Formats: sequence, C-alpha cells, structure tokens
Amino acid sequence: MLIVKKFGGTSVANKERIFNVAKRCIEDYKNGNKVVVVLSAMGKQTDVLLDMAKDINPKASRRELDMLLTTGEQTSVALMAMAMDSLGVPAVSMNAFQVAMHTTADYGSARIKRIDTERIKNELDNRRIVVITGFQGINKYDDYTTLGRGGSDTTAVALAAALHADACEIYTDVDGVFTADPRIVPKARKLGEITYDEMLELASLGAGVLHNRSVEMAKKYGVQLVVRSSLNTSEGTVVKEESNMEKMLVSGVAADKNVVQIAVEGLENKPGVAFKLFQHLANHNVNVDMILQSVEHDGTQDISFTVTEDMADTAIETIERHAHTSLKCSNTEVVKDVSKVSIVGAGMMTNAGVAAKMFEALYDAGVNILQISTSEIRVTVLIEEKYTDIAAQAIHDAFSLES
Amino acid sequence: MLIVKKFGGTSVANKERIFNVAKRCIEDYKNGNKVVVVLSAMGKQTDVLLDMAKDINPKASRRELDMLLTTGEQTSVALMAMAMDSLGVPAVSMNAFQVAMHTTADYGSARIKRIDTERIKNELDNRRIVVITGFQGINKYDDYTTLGRGGSDTTAVALAAALHADACEIYTDVDGVFTADPRIVPKARKLGEITYDEMLELASLGAGVLHNRSVEMAKKYGVQLVVRSSLNTSEGTVVKEESNMEKMLVSGVAADKNVVQIAVEGLENKPGVAFKLFQHLANHNVNVDMILQSVEHDGTQDISFTVTEDMADTAIETIERHAHTSLKCSNTEVVKDVSKVSIVGAGMMTNAGVAAKMFEALYDAGVNILQISTSEIRVTVLIEEKYTDIAAQAIHDAFSLES
Repeated sequence: MLIVKKFGGTSVANKERIFNVAKRCIEDYKNGNKVVVVLSAMGKQTDVLLDMAKDINPKASRRELDMLLTTGEQTSVALMAMAMDSLGVPAVSMNAFQVAMHTTADYGSARIKRIDTERIKNELDNRRIVVITGFQGINKYDDYTTLGRGGSDTTAVALAAALHADACEIYTDVDGVFTADPRIVPKARKLGEITYDEMLELASLGAGVLHNRSVEMAKKYGVQLVVRSSLNTSEGTVVKEESNMEKMLVSGVAADKNVVQIAVEGLENKPGVAFKLFQHLANHNVNVDMILQSVEHDGTQDISFTVTEDMADTAIETIERHAHTSLKCSNTEVVKDVSKVSIVGAGMMTNAGVAAKMFEALYDAGVNILQISTSEIRVTVLIEEKYTDIAAQAIHDAFSLES
Repeated sequence: MLIVKKFGGTSVANKERIFNVAKRCIEDYKNGNKVVVVLSAMGKQTDVLLDMAKDINPKASRRELDMLLTTGEQTSVALMAMAMDSLGVPAVSMNAFQVAMHTTADYGSARIKRIDTERIKNELDNRRIVVITGFQGINKYDDYTTLGRGGSDTTAVALAAALHADACEIYTDVDGVFTADPRIVPKARKLGEITYDEMLELASLGAGVLHNRSVEMAKKYGVQLVVRSSLNTSEGTVVKEESNMEKMLVSGVAADKNVVQIAVEGLENKPGVAFKLFQHLANHNVNVDMILQSVEHDGTQDISFTVTEDMADTAIETIERHAHTSLKCSNTEVVKDVSKVSIVGAGMMTNAGVAAKMFEALYDAGVNILQISTSEIRVTVLIEEKYTDIAAQAIHDAFSLES
C-alpha cells in the first residue's frame, strides 16, 4: 500500500511529538507500506513568522511573505527526517522545489496545478519514507507560493491523487468528525463515514476539521480520506463519495459563533442597489453569508447579511465610505451576539419535514430564529449567540444523533 | 556599476540592523548602481538550528542538516526584501534554487561549481535590488548544500565573478584589515590595501576577517574585494593581486590562541611512522599544523604538532586507538597553553633578515620560542600562550607598523 499521512503543526510542535509522529509512520513502513508524510510548520511557527514580517513591513508583498513562510515547513520536514533516521529508518525530506509542486502564480492563495512524482516514487522505491512540506508550492516564475490557511490538507490530498495512493490519512487533535461539537453536545457521536458534500457543508460551517479545498479536491479526484487523531489509534471518520450505510437523514449539527450580522437601513428601493452593495463588499474581499432583504417601506428598504467577525470592520468601513454616494443608506447597524446553527445531511434532499423538525426543536427549547438559509443538504438558522449551545443540544436530541 | 555587497549575521540580527543594511544598499541603488546583496542567517540562527537538530538526532545526516540550515538565510533575505520595499525601493529575494547556485554534492562543505545569472540580471535590469541567500547551494540531486562556516563570503565572491561585478564589498564589524588585532595592539593601523596572498596567510592564522576560500576564489577570478565596516562609512581595506603601494616588508602581525600542541613520544624510528600518524589523523578530519620531529634517541623519536583546540580530543583519541597497533608510541602529551604569533608580508620573500628581526624582538621581550614555521610570505612562532599579547606588541613595534 502507498499511504499519504498528513500531520498539522500541533502534532510536530516539539521533540516529543515529532518522535510520536515518526513512530506512527514507521509502523506503517515496517508493515511493508510505502509512506509519504506531509507536515505543516511546527506549532505556531507560521504566526511567529507573520509577526516578524509585520514588524518589518506591515504591507509586505505576498511574494516575500511566502518566501518567509515556506521556511516553516522546511524546518519541520528536515527535523522529522532526522528523527526517523535516528530510529533506524531511512527518510528524506523534500520541499516544494524538490518535489516539484507546481501551483498557480497567486502568492498566499495558490492552487496546485501539477505535481512531479518522479523523485518521490524513486525515493519510495528505495524504501525511504518521504517527508514533504505541506502548504507550499512553486509557480511559473520559480517563486514560492503558499496555499492559504489549512493548505497542508490540500497538499496531502493532491499528493494522494498524483501518486494514486491507497489511503490518505489526515491527522488532527480530535478523533474524527462528530455529529456535533463534543464540547457543546456531550453525547455527540463520532461518525464512521460521511460524504464529501456533507463534509464540505460542515467545514464551511465552522465545524472545520478539514480544509474546504482539500475536500473539494478529494471529491474531484475520488481520494478517500480518513480523518483521525494523532493522539490515539481510534479509527477516525472516512470521507467518501457515497456512504455505505443507510443514508442518514441528518449527519450532524454544526454551530458557528464566529458570526456578525450587519444591517444596512434606509436603502433606496431601486434596481441595482443590492448589486452595488455586495459589489463594494466583494471588492474588499468581504465574504457575505446569510442575506435578508426587507420589504419596501416608504420607498426605502433594509438589507442585512452576516460576515465572519474578523471581516466586520472592513464591511462597515466599506459601506460607510459609500453611504452618501453610490449607496445612499441612512444607517448601518452591527449585531455581534449572533450565531449560526445548522443541520447537515445527504439524506435531507429526499426527505421533507427535516427543516420543520429542526424549527420545532428550537421552538420547544425557547430559541427564537432570526434568519434562515438552506442548501440541498443543509438548513442553517441565525439565532442569538447565548442560545447556541441549547439550540445545538436540542436539535441533536430531536434527530436522535446521540451515541 | 554593478555592486555585490555581503553582510554577515550580526549585521542583520534584528529589525534595526536590517533597516541599516537596507538603507546602505538603497544609497548605492539611488546613485544609479545595480545592487546585489548577499546575506547570512540572522544573528546566531544557524547555531539555534544546529542545536535543534542535535536535540532530535546528534548524528543527523549532513543532507538533512543542510535542508534545515538553509531556512536561516531564506528568512534573512525575505525580511530584507520587505524592509527595502517598505523604504520604497523594489527588491526581490532569491534562494539557491531560484538563482540557481550549483555546487558539488558534498553536504556541509560544498564548493560552488556554476551560477545561473539570467534571473539575477533580469531583476537588476528591472531596477530591483536582488537579495540572495549566502552560504547555500543546490547539488545535482536537487538537494540543498551548504558551503561551510563563513561560506557567505564565498557566495558573494562567486556572484561578483559570475556577474562581472565592478565591486565586491564584504561588510563586517571591524573597519578593515589591521596590522594586528587592535584589542591586543592598541596602535594597530588599518591597512589601505593588502594582497590576496597576504590575506590568505592572515585568514588562516586566526586574524580571520575573511573566509579563506572566498579569498582563494577572489584571487582565482581576479575579484577585487573591499573589507569594510557595516557600522560606519570608513573606507575599509582593498584586497587585490598587487599592492600599488611600495611593497611593505611586513603587512601585519597575527596572533592565534586557538592552538593546542600535541606531542607523541617514543615512536619507533622507522620509515612510514610519520606517514601513518598523519594518515590516521587525516582520516578523522584532523587538520595538522606546525610539525616538529625530534632527532632519534634510543631507537625512538618524538613527533609534535599543533591542532585547533576543538580538534584536540579527536586527535588524542585517534592516536590512542592506534597506540599499541600500527603506531607503537609510549606516551602522548597535550600542551594547551600555547599560541601562534606570525608576521605576514608580500615583501618578505625578497628580503633577508625579516625572521631574524622578529626573533630579536621576541628575545628582547623575554619570549621563548617553542617552534618555528615559515612560508614565502609568513613567519610563525609557537610560544607560551601567556606571552601572546606581549609578543604581538613587541613585533608590531619592531617593524614600526603603528599608525
């Protein structure tokens, strides 16, 4: 078997953890498998480097930032290869140049285009464990690029696809994907399997065990993923196209407190106003989520939407800059104490009444719904933040997701 | 003009110093010059990385060590490019892959074979300052290599040669090359010029302002060097083939306390004994300096030699391992409190009496000579370490080297 194993920064944060990872990989190696290991930078090293850069130049170019950040994973892979060597197993570290890992030109948010697999295959054939830098690539200018936050997951999936790996294991600090966050819903149950689509909805809803783009890529290339813990040997959750189990109505409940609702009031009620508003926001890279447009009142209307907390200031500034020119709104209001609670499940799309059951559970728990949005396999409600845990628990109970 | 400027780790150890270097380079740039900057890792970063490696695997492979160490210079060049950008001057950082800087395959002690200059030239033509990682290269396997301690000097000289640079400036924390160490001889004078050969003798004698191999390469390719301070704007010392000045008898006095004398006693007096001894030492990478072979006494002889302090243990262990087999010696003795004091000067070879004058000065100062060795442009004496400063001062006075 050819196995790709990815470990995040927490798993290689110090000497002890590096050796733990090394031993896990060596176990697979000694069982006769070919082993490729993808690593992130140690612990908080990426943040340390970003702080160094900020101190020198708060507006540093992404090209130079990527040049700086890529030292993080290179440090991890070199130390990991040394650890494996010291345990008597030949290992070789490789960075994005050595692989080579070709990406688009976009510094800071590049996408993988092509992976040269020749050297990796040679090293594997020579019975070495190959330890590869996650998160980084090189572009057509021979410059380093990075794949954005969580990019190491994507590196692992891309390598698994290019090498036609038999398994792609994503190690994390939880046991797998759960029916809800176990810190909120104590009886949450680990899922044995989940589909790519369900995982995508969960990831984008703040239950993010996996980086969204890695799941998209896994779906595209049919790479079966296993999400499992680097701390124990429990089996984890398999992410794949179709669940073998009877399709569950609802796979899980996701809660996301990292949400702010912004209301823009007194907008002129004429064509193109909403377009202009969201155009301005998009120009400033503000991702807008749940949108609600009020009915007209005295020739004006209100539009509210949600954004993640870190984008709230940018959103407000953007709107206020245009408040007296292209937008002509009377007021903006920010509601910080809101959260999103969602149910996700591939079975939902063929099953009526799921949303109703969710709303009923919330009503019984005394939770008021501020806004609703849905997709084929998801229902999301916006509620007051203080009710988040109660809501998640109530929905979890209503759908009998407990273990 | 195309100027190559090299700054060591001390010069880029923190934000303030990085900006100092950036400003110096920008001055040249704004005067219309093309500027290439070569940097070492920040401060003691190389040692920090070596300690990390040692902690993981004390016998880490040189291949993985080089993979780890090369992150140091990459960090420096990225931060420097950011600093220059923030001062309004476009800059681009490049590592050994991006250059590409081709070396021999020897990890840890590679030699530069060939430098691709196309991208550097393009970036310079686009009016960018090019900031390049010193100390590192890539070999035919597409692996990182390093050039050994002080290797960044060599990188700078090699770049100056490949780019046909008009100037190659090596920045350090002293004002240039002196007639003696100013900490020992307060009246030591900064030399305006010095020949490659003199510089080579001085470097190998512990007056090391420049890395030996960088001087050898500068001599080979006729790259004129300037050694100057990164802390002030004084003119520094020019290192070149021929001094324009009337050749001085003696250019300088070098003192080296990093010396241990090892005496191997009671060796059989038969052919091949000295060969075997030094063969064993060479096999363990022990570089031997001043050798003294005693006259025979009762069929045995003694051989003594000097090594640097860090190699003393290896030398002793090596000899004792063979003391009863191939070597058959009765005893080894280590004398730690010795030092070397030397005079260096291109004028020496055509001038008799220089050595005699040196010995006279030492005699007058009451310093006993333990051993003597000479080259065409150098006379070295081994003396008791406690007399080092007195000896250097006395010789400096005798040849009137003071300013």
